[in-house]
Amino acid sequence: MTTNRTVRLVGRPVGMVTREAFEIADEAAPEPGEGEFRVKIEYISLDPAMRGWMAEGKSYVAPVQLGDVMRAYGVGYVDVSNHADYAAGDAVVGMFGVQQYAISNGKGVVRADASLAPLESWVGGLGMPGWTAYFGLLDVGEAKEGDTVVISAASGAVGSIVGQIGKLKGCRVVGIAGSAEKCAYLRDELGFDAVIDYKSEDLYAALKTACPDGVDVYFENVGGEITDAVLSRMNTFGRVAVCGMIAYYNATEAPAGLKNVRSILVNRLKVRGFIVFDFAERIAEAMTALVGWQKEGKLQLRQDVREGGVDAYPEVLNLLYTGGNFGKLVLKV
Amino acid sequence: MTTNRTVRLVGRPVGMVTREAFEIADEAAPEPGEGEFRVKIEYISLDPAMRGWMAEGKSYVAPVQLGDVMRAYGVGYVDVSNHADYAAGDAVVGMFGVQQYAISNGKGVVRADASLAPLESWVGGLGMPGWTAYFGLLDVGEAKEGDTVVISAASGAVGSIVGQIGKLKGCRVVGIAGSAEKCAYLRDELGFDAVIDYKSEDLYAALKTACPDGVDVYFENVGGEITDAVLSRMNTFGRVAVCGMIAYYNATEAPAGLKNVRSILVNRLKVRGFIVFDFAERIAEAMTALVGWQKEGKLQLRQDVREGGVDAYPEVLNLLYTGGNFGKLVLKV
Repeated sequence: MTTNRTVRLVGRPVGMVTREAFEIADEAAPEPGEGEFRVKIEYISLDPAMRGWMAEGKSYVAPVQLGDVMRAYGVGYVDVSNHADYAAGDAVVGMFGVQQYAISNGKGVVRADASLAPLESWVGGLGMPGWTAYFGLLDVGEAKEGDTVVISAASGAVGSIVGQIGKLKGCRVVGIAGSAEKCAYLRDELGFDAVIDYKSEDLYAALKTACPDGVDVYFENVGGEITDAVLSRMNTFGRVAVCGMIAYYNATEAPAGLKNVRSILVNRLKVRGFIVFDFAERIAEAMTALVGWQKEGKLQLRQDVREGGVDAYPEVLNLLYTGGNFGKLVLKV
Repeated sequence: MTTNRTVRLVGRPVGMVTREAFEIADEAAPEPGEGEFRVKIEYISLDPAMRGWMAEGKSYVAPVQLGDVMRAYGVGYVDVSNHADYAAGDAVVGMFGVQQYAISNGKGVVRADASLAPLESWVGGLGMPGWTAYFGLLDVGEAKEGDTVVISAASGAVGSIVGQIGKLKGCRVVGIAGSAEKCAYLRDELGFDAVIDYKSEDLYAALKTACPDGVDVYFENVGGEITDAVLSRMNTFGRVAVCGMIAYYNATEAPAGLKNVRSILVNRLKVRGFIVFDFAERIAEAMTALVGWQKEGKLQLRQDVREGGVDAYPEVLNLLYTGGNFGKLVLKV
């Protein structure tokens, strides 16, 4: 019998995620039924949205129910198959959960191609963060040559790709991040035109210096005070692509309200929230472009792959909210 | 010699508009040069945006300079013309200012047709408010049959037309206004499906009752707490057409920030600021539709035409910010 180590949500954390919210145990691995296959999971994607999935209340998707295996994207190999389209050994990406083995009927599953990029990259930068960056900047943000693009959480999995695509498209790219080390990485390794360390600089003054011609596109990952500051510098007909609002995810009390909303009116901004699944039918387009840029050496991906298996899930996840990770966070199963 | 009574901005009001901000005096009416004509102004449009024009700082358009005639839309008849395309007696709409006579070179001027609608209507509901409602609801708000549309400042010049166009298009229309009288007017005379008196009702509870299927389009005229309440009820892929934010116009201290901005992300909203001039090339389309609906008796326009000439400008203008007007505010010169 195959053993499946699982991480089940058994409580709804208040504030930071704690180990007590989960039950981590060995179970018998389930067998696939007719039209199903079983996946042996190799890598799990850790994403800021997970915090929202643990909470009750309306978000993109329904919350994880208490007692269920914690929801997570993962990549692995088909292990046993009763599905006509999948054979043992096929590499697949899907919402497989924080566990070692998952059953799937193929719905929502994307084929990974390990000859194109190593397996962990499919839940790393080339996967959801890459697709999110691609559609968020080019479709939602309508970025075009000559635009000034400002990115918050710029050294994160999504932000670092947004900036590089911006450079590829001829934009002036300005990154906001939370340490001198992250800022140096964006400027020196990824070629950002300007960087702002929001923890040590005055945001309003720094934005004025970094964006002498104002801001055409703001790629929003954070919310709160950083958003207020960027709104004050937006150009007429600017776009705000709202990809994330990390500032609110772990907040136990209402954060300070957004003050510069009048900018939306005065500057006739387009502010639009999106998630990558809104562009599900165009994933192949994004993947082709991203892999192409990576092969040409124009797109660097920084991945932070952590060991420890599913048992390390709560602690590794918290790195996302404390700024402790550096690049797309992946957990090796 | 023709006398021209003018209202010049000589101070920048703080808070409400006061008479001291203006110099009101008789001057010699200017004579048109080559390629110009003179307009005898009959009616002046009083609009919430005027408060912004008096303030320094970035808005849609440059502020009115101290010493200049206060900016205003008006309608009147050509009086003397040295312009090939305009003859004495032609009815015209344009940015003619708060005065009795204005000089124009025809730029930005729209011809009025008094046989289609009475002259005051061209600076009344059929004019800018009508065009704003039309493009704001149908283009920016992307309203379609079956949508629930919520309108703040719903009994105002723009809001009352938005609601009626919404009904014409098969939407469920919910109006928010600030008195029982205004609410009764919207419900009983304009056929709104539901109304909310924000001064006497709990907004969150009232919105829940009035919008059982959530909100697809929010036509924003107000900002502040009302916006927060509506954001909490928005449906996935909802649209917010940001037409005005009256709450901020006279504010001397920073208003409370917007708290429910996460709704933009969670519900993947499109929030877009606009002004009617963004659709300048399509005014004829809007005017044709509006006049057509009015002739069919499907569009009621409430105008509040005030007497008193240009001398009454400061007091009449303040009715906009105290809720003292009822329908599109027009000043008879």
